[in-house]
Amino acid sequence: MMNVSLEKLMAHIGAAARPAARAMGEAPSEAKNAALSNAASMIAARADEILRVNASEVAAAKALSPAFLDRMRLTRARIGDIAAALETVASLADPVGATIRKWERPNGLKFERIRTPIGVIAVIYESRPNVTIDAAAIAIKAGNAAILRGGSECFETSRLLAGIFRDALRAAGLPEDALQFVDTTDRAAVGALLSGMDGAVDLVIPRGGKSLVERVQKDARVAVLSHLDGVCHVYLDRNADQQKAIDITVNSKMRRTGVCGAAETLLIDIAALGRLLPPVAAALKTVKCELRGDAAACSIDPSIAKASDEDYYTEYLAPILSIAAVDGVEDAIAHIARYGSSHTETIVTEDAATAGRFLRAVDSAIVLHNASTQFADGGEFGFGAEIGIATGRLHARGPVGVEELTSYKTLVRGSGQVRP
Amino acid sequence: MMNVSLEKLMAHIGAAARPAARAMGEAPSEAKNAALSNAASMIAARADEILRVNASEVAAAKALSPAFLDRMRLTRARIGDIAAALETVASLADPVGATIRKWERPNGLKFERIRTPIGVIAVIYESRPNVTIDAAAIAIKAGNAAILRGGSECFETSRLLAGIFRDALRAAGLPEDALQFVDTTDRAAVGALLSGMDGAVDLVIPRGGKSLVERVQKDARVAVLSHLDGVCHVYLDRNADQQKAIDITVNSKMRRTGVCGAAETLLIDIAALGRLLPPVAAALKTVKCELRGDAAACSIDPSIAKASDEDYYTEYLAPILSIAAVDGVEDAIAHIARYGSSHTETIVTEDAATAGRFLRAVDSAIVLHNASTQFADGGEFGFGAEIGIATGRLHARGPVGVEELTSYKTLVRGSGQVRP
Repeated sequence: MMNVSLEKLMAHIGAAARPAARAMGEAPSEAKNAALSNAASMIAARADEILRVNASEVAAAKALSPAFLDRMRLTRARIGDIAAALETVASLADPVGATIRKWERPNGLKFERIRTPIGVIAVIYESRPNVTIDAAAIAIKAGNAAILRGGSECFETSRLLAGIFRDALRAAGLPEDALQFVDTTDRAAVGALLSGMDGAVDLVIPRGGKSLVERVQKDARVAVLSHLDGVCHVYLDRNADQQKAIDITVNSKMRRTGVCGAAETLLIDIAALGRLLPPVAAALKTVKCELRGDAAACSIDPSIAKASDEDYYTEYLAPILSIAAVDGVEDAIAHIARYGSSHTETIVTEDAATAGRFLRAVDSAIVLHNASTQFADGGEFGFGAEIGIATGRLHARGPVGVEELTSYKTLVRGSGQVRP
Repeated sequence: MMNVSLEKLMAHIGAAARPAARAMGEAPSEAKNAALSNAASMIAARADEILRVNASEVAAAKALSPAFLDRMRLTRARIGDIAAALETVASLADPVGATIRKWERPNGLKFERIRTPIGVIAVIYESRPNVTIDAAAIAIKAGNAAILRGGSECFETSRLLAGIFRDALRAAGLPEDALQFVDTTDRAAVGALLSGMDGAVDLVIPRGGKSLVERVQKDARVAVLSHLDGVCHVYLDRNADQQKAIDITVNSKMRRTGVCGAAETLLIDIAALGRLLPPVAAALKTVKCELRGDAAACSIDPSIAKASDEDYYTEYLAPILSIAAVDGVEDAIAHIARYGSSHTETIVTEDAATAGRFLRAVDSAIVLHNASTQFADGGEFGFGAEIGIATGRLHARGPVGVEELTSYKTLVRGSGQVRP
């Protein structure tokens, strides 16, 4: 339930969002890009103040886990990254008004489908203050208005960054309400955003841990772009090259273990288990990865711990890898269909037909051949920036970048045609 | 609330849908097209039986409105149309596996985005038995499984048609559960479908009156493609050609008044009101269209009734047209933004710059220049078939055809790349 002052705040935010979105939808590319560049220089100029506010929040949160503190901490280098990301987004092509396709009908009508903004996008995030700027930048570039709800631990840092971004919008002649920051840590504000606020919100994007995403997916009455899990698989086929098998498995699992595109399960073709498991396991152990295997894997390498069925459903986000032997590519596809989260999977094989079968049959947002699952990232796709990865099947699937935050409309040009 | 037998029925439907969808996702084009052709010939062969069942339902519903009875009535000609529509869908290109775009990154990774089915699509419809086949055909062509819930008045006709379609699937070697018909008139079944049935349903499409669509939009916990209203506008600009103004207004309003693309409001540039209103009003009166205007319109033609503010929000779906004078294209755009339903609007003008401004600024699924709003139709777009028009801003906007019932995935082909 919302108290009166929260209700007033959210009503104010809701009422301001739509007019700002309309104005942003018509904003020229130059103005949007100027706002992003302004924000970059204003953030750089106010780095000391940002670091001071952030340091005091990090100090207040010192009882939390080191990983959590690391996510919320800003440094001079990270502020530089934020400013650089703004410049990158500014340099991207403006998707608004871009032609998706054109066609003509026998009656002479000329059809043109063009990109439009979505409208108002709410982003609900946890402890990373940089999401404030990333989300704002991508939403604004695509001509949308954004409403941001940041986690309480980083509330002051995020509010400060959002305020700077609003200054940057105003300095570019754009409505500052194109970015609104929910100025309360009251958790009921999340419920209000998820309700869609009587049509004020078109889309919700959660950025954070599984419990946040779960709540958003469960309670949202508007569209959501998100992924709950990234139980990503590496499948080593009987025709896998051994060095590629080692390199891709180690990189998919260990490059960064905390990202959603990190591999959690290694599937090995039973026909190649004896050849591939020992060198791959050795390489993983060298970099301190814990291995949990099925009976076949453990029989080849008794130092591997026994995996439970639950292990194969688990997104460790840690240096732990579950391993299972499968009977060829069809069995690998079946394992992924049963245990996977439709996020990202890769096959390592020199056999083009087997690779083709895997790419076609695996029903995930991203399916790779002879490449690391850690390429599951908007930057690696060439999108310039992303606001997360979606594993749903509507609107956008995979990295959500500037284009994914657009809708479209169809223009029809005639010369007086009426329908018979 | 569901009783035990309904709960069992829906659980059975839910459990059967996903495996059928998986099989359909891999079904070759030839098998899907064979199923559609089979259905066409089986329906033609069983026309007498279909007409008998339908006639008895129409007789039982004779207390309902003539328009309602007309929608539920099948004739030999309409059965021919249903069979022809099946053949049309069969002849369309298979969207599944089609490449949306390809690109390459400096590290040599080759990206290919291809269309995939969405999965399980629930269609909830009212009194038109032909929707049974239209919905099934489009869903199956795009590699999905469909769950159909038909209105009670036409329940037996729809069930019979669905049964024939299932026979057609089986005869083509495809799982008959790719089409499931909810075999009960219990209204609680709708609630079950809208809940998403624990992940068994990916998308809901309502086909029917406003109260059905409203309920679906309000209660659905899964994605919905729909439109609530079609308050479509014709704007006659000061530079409109008089004959085009007459033809396009009359056709937009009167060709068929019961379709969502029918115009409901005529906006006339105040600078051309005296020139355009008299001939346009005369043409509309000739075809028995009731006119309701604002003060400016009534002052030029006192035979026009006075419109209330509510009129401008109203989708009449009848031979009634509201009329308002506006102060040029910007005022027309503002009127549409305020009163419109983001469905379809057209501008009549010989001035290219004004047309360009209208096309760019009007935020509707379909925006036309010098053409009738009644072209808002998947067939007229060249889609071959449609299952409705969506006015939401996520996934699909405008006519929903075969392509709009697909998702996508991204394939990434490498040669051993790992992420630095």
